[in-house]
Amino acid sequence: MSAGAAAGRLIGREVRLASRPSGWPVAENFQIVEAPVPSPGPGHVIVRNIAMSVDPYMRGRMNDVKSYVPPFALDAPLDGGAVGEVIVSESPDRKVGDLVVHGLGWRDYAVLDASRTKVIDPGLAPPTAYLGALGMTGLTAYAGLVEVGAMRPGDTVFISSAAGAVGSLAGQIAKLRGAARVVGSAGSAAKVAYARELGFDAAFDYHDGPVGDSLREAAPDGIDVYFDNVGGDHLEAALSSLRPHGRVAMCGAVAQYNNTTPPAAPRNLALAIGKQLTLKGFIVSSYGHLADEFAAQMAEWLRDGKVRFDETTVDGLENSVRAFLGMLRGDNVGKMVVRLS
Amino acid sequence: MSAGAAAGRLIGREVRLASRPSGWPVAENFQIVEAPVPSPGPGHVIVRNIAMSVDPYMRGRMNDVKSYVPPFALDAPLDGGAVGEVIVSESPDRKVGDLVVHGLGWRDYAVLDASRTKVIDPGLAPPTAYLGALGMTGLTAYAGLVEVGAMRPGDTVFISSAAGAVGSLAGQIAKLRGAARVVGSAGSAAKVAYARELGFDAAFDYHDGPVGDSLREAAPDGIDVYFDNVGGDHLEAALSSLRPHGRVAMCGAVAQYNNTTPPAAPRNLALAIGKQLTLKGFIVSSYGHLADEFAAQMAEWLRDGKVRFDETTVDGLENSVRAFLGMLRGDNVGKMVVRLS
Repeated sequence: MSAGAAAGRLIGREVRLASRPSGWPVAENFQIVEAPVPSPGPGHVIVRNIAMSVDPYMRGRMNDVKSYVPPFALDAPLDGGAVGEVIVSESPDRKVGDLVVHGLGWRDYAVLDASRTKVIDPGLAPPTAYLGALGMTGLTAYAGLVEVGAMRPGDTVFISSAAGAVGSLAGQIAKLRGAARVVGSAGSAAKVAYARELGFDAAFDYHDGPVGDSLREAAPDGIDVYFDNVGGDHLEAALSSLRPHGRVAMCGAVAQYNNTTPPAAPRNLALAIGKQLTLKGFIVSSYGHLADEFAAQMAEWLRDGKVRFDETTVDGLENSVRAFLGMLRGDNVGKMVVRLS
Repeated sequence: MSAGAAAGRLIGREVRLASRPSGWPVAENFQIVEAPVPSPGPGHVIVRNIAMSVDPYMRGRMNDVKSYVPPFALDAPLDGGAVGEVIVSESPDRKVGDLVVHGLGWRDYAVLDASRTKVIDPGLAPPTAYLGALGMTGLTAYAGLVEVGAMRPGDTVFISSAAGAVGSLAGQIAKLRGAARVVGSAGSAAKVAYARELGFDAAFDYHDGPVGDSLREAAPDGIDVYFDNVGGDHLEAALSSLRPHGRVAMCGAVAQYNNTTPPAAPRNLALAIGKQLTLKGFIVSSYGHLADEFAAQMAEWLRDGKVRFDETTVDGLENSVRAFLGMLRGDNVGKMVVRLS
């Protein structure tokens, strides 16, 4: 069909940032707006989004601070990972019907250069897996564990948010790559049980007592790698338990994304000197050099049934903000995904 | 002369740890005791100490906590870097009159295996330089900057305790290795002036205002490497000023060695994620692989007059505790050394 004609008929919804949250975001910070879908230029495609991702890092982009990715603009649509079907193509590289993953979520229709989309193989896994195990989430877990945390066979590994999207994968990858012991923390008894199901050797609910005590009990001989999704008291506990030459892969600090005052922890960072620890912050976009190796490895694990990946699904763009807020509160087990069509 | 006969006649003083300090050490935590010098066994030497080092790390060893080096034992002599002259040798590898550097300071006479001493070249620099620029102090500065902090030509480098033994060398090494800008902090106007004399491009007194403000003023475009001797508010300021992919070489935390309550800073460690910072703690004994390269390089710099190294000298073993406490307070400019004979 003709792109102009198709675009001319299309009205799509998009979620915009109406105001910047102070502390925990509320529904009023967002607005769903209907707007005509722009005409695709040469080389562009229109993608009807099937599903989109909500991720912790998006909270940071709602603040007006310079960071590794620019902040979301006010009164403009949010963006983020999405999968969809090409419905109009002005590019020789994509045909109508292609399933693609791309970066323009939070909207019904995405219009973008075909080179900014990647065709996915729905024979290998359902499309939403490309937002999760086979996507940025999986690469984050893989890169954080393998390269940033430099995990070695025989290591004891501690992972926070163990029932979350990244944490649940990191734990399984750690076991598959020969970790001697993998310990997880999570925010409820159900999540702890879930982590155990995934193969974590031990897991605890961080509400059950001081994190340091729970960690020492779960890993009495200490840990070698901490995959940090939380910051704060979890990081402090890990610094105490890390053995000499231990590593921290600093992936997230979800415990403090919504704080308006800075956390006092970790108060024991000086332990890093004598124990010669390395703490390394990372963002997945710097680890593209691992993408092929990761994709091949993860595809094999999925085919062999060695990695389990669960989703918590919310239906409808109109519920995407609710899904995002729920993810920040930890309502999800595994990856939080919004189904759009 | 016969070792047995010599040892039989020798009485030496040694400084012992009488009780463990709580917070700041006081003179009563130490005791100077006269004791017969043990007879040297086969392969051993007796060294008459000429000078000894007092270093910040020794404070940590006075606590009864497991660390990278065992704590000092109660009612036993302290130890640490020293230089001296071999007066008795039961080893074919050392002769009477050799000047050596070794690890049994805090005493008039050291008796140890010859293999634990290293002969020094007094033609290159005075013996005490082997406790400083040519010794552990220099290697600490070199390894921290070059390997741990991975400084590159063109980097902006921030160094705390800039007038101290390690910091004053680190600043000069940074300039010699092509840093674009080197900023130091110190605890008095005199020390700031001293750092400027050494070639620091900017220096500030951390009493003059919030460290973060002073650092931003001295390095308005941010920093690439922070050589941390202090911890606490300095580290917090550095985390704010570090540019993406910046590095922290965590060498010391002198600001908190004598704290009885843990510091609340840094409260902004989560910045390390988005900026992809690396914080790496280190102790010099793990960097022996750099010792030869360092020794050759530093000898050349000293010969060419490119590195200046000053000492604050205290005379007499009976004043060694006073020297140590003064060093912790920051009374020294450059290396604090106790002259023993």
